[in-house]
Amino acid sequence: MKLDKIRIVLVNTSHPGNIGGVARAMKNMGLSRLYLVAPQQYPHEKAEWRAASAGDVLQSATVTESLSEAVADCQFIVGTSARGRRIPWPLLDPRQCAEHIDIASRNGEVAILFGREDRGLTNDELQICNLHLNIPTSEAYSSLNLAMAVQVACYELRMRLNAPGRSTQSNEQWDAPFTTRAAMEHFFVHLEQTLIDIEFLDPTAPRQLMARMRRLYSRVRLDKMELNILRGILTETQKWVARARGDN
Amino acid sequence: MKLDKIRIVLVNTSHPGNIGGVARAMKNMGLSRLYLVAPQQYPHEKAEWRAASAGDVLQSATVTESLSEAVADCQFIVGTSARGRRIPWPLLDPRQCAEHIDIASRNGEVAILFGREDRGLTNDELQICNLHLNIPTSEAYSSLNLAMAVQVACYELRMRLNAPGRSTQSNEQWDAPFTTRAAMEHFFVHLEQTLIDIEFLDPTAPRQLMARMRRLYSRVRLDKMELNILRGILTETQKWVARARGDN
Repeated sequence: MKLDKIRIVLVNTSHPGNIGGVARAMKNMGLSRLYLVAPQQYPHEKAEWRAASAGDVLQSATVTESLSEAVADCQFIVGTSARGRRIPWPLLDPRQCAEHIDIASRNGEVAILFGREDRGLTNDELQICNLHLNIPTSEAYSSLNLAMAVQVACYELRMRLNAPGRSTQSNEQWDAPFTTRAAMEHFFVHLEQTLIDIEFLDPTAPRQLMARMRRLYSRVRLDKMELNILRGILTETQKWVARARGDN
Repeated sequence: MKLDKIRIVLVNTSHPGNIGGVARAMKNMGLSRLYLVAPQQYPHEKAEWRAASAGDVLQSATVTESLSEAVADCQFIVGTSARGRRIPWPLLDPRQCAEHIDIASRNGEVAILFGREDRGLTNDELQICNLHLNIPTSEAYSSLNLAMAVQVACYELRMRLNAPGRSTQSNEQWDAPFTTRAAMEHFFVHLEQTLIDIEFLDPTAPRQLMARMRRLYSRVRLDKMELNILRGILTETQKWVARARGDN
């Protein structure tokens, strides 16, 4: 994925606030090339305000009179579209599109087109596109705000950039190493003995208690510090039992 | 996925326009249950305006004084978070979260929390969460607009609703209902008192102990039977301490 080969093209946008929202959404996801085709009000302070810290994206935006100028040098063009056009095209969701855009961006210039707030892209505009992007929505209300639509499309590009093969990166930032299976076994022995000591577990009628405890602590995936804390609690508890029994 | 079991909770939102944007984003994706915890300006015409045709979501929104009221009956809580907290939690991206939320929504009430525009959720607020959602962003500008963040999270729920395919191991067939947030709070109070009783926790120098315990037991997602067992262990432990001290 080459984000710097991808431009976002807004066609005939009415509300300058939306242009600002688009600039911010783009920069959040690492895109910077904004094209504005015949915007109705631009520049405008509402655009600046909604852009927040993405003023640089607005500053460097290219304003053109026509769509053809904005995409003349593009090798791959994606048009966003609602469902139910007269002549149906294959509609891809943003994730499927991100895959095509990824590949296309390695070989040339890519444009993603977003239409007017009230009417989207015209059929003529959609016909210059290589594929059509459709954001899945509820039947009850299918019209996304323009900047929201850009956010979703750019989010999928970012997701693909981060994980082209789709792996989980969830536990990367953990602050302590996770326990070993052997350490967990020692913990379970310690836990079981402590539960017997406090007379919570009757070894002659253990029922499912240790099975439940094992399931609980195995599924949480303890780190070493947590395990040390839990074992410290068990040790202290055992001391109190010994004290109560007058063992020391 | 049961979208009607999922609530979006906005904590202490500053800008009413964002509340409206959230309502629209939700309705576009098929969600309808909005909770507003101590919004700074609400109701407000800017919220109505940005909501567009999602005025009904605003109308039926629940406004509460505190976060605990808004999530008391929830079995599964997701908090949105930027990277780089002191005690790291597992951070999942919106797609990974959608899988967990899908499963959780079949068995109980789910909340997804979004924090303040300028500071997000506090560490205390994040600690009541079962998992933390992080939206991948560019290093250059990582702060998403609030409504945009909600849009992305809800989009992933919609994507999963439409194509529930590839799942990992699920908790669908769990044998006991999961605990509520309120029950977890009672457990943490009981745990803290017990750790003080056994002199493992020094209330004058608590350090990070309870934060680590909260993180551990929140991320495991306890069922009611497990919670009963853990509370039983605490009660028995306290009795032994009392006996050792000659309190009875």
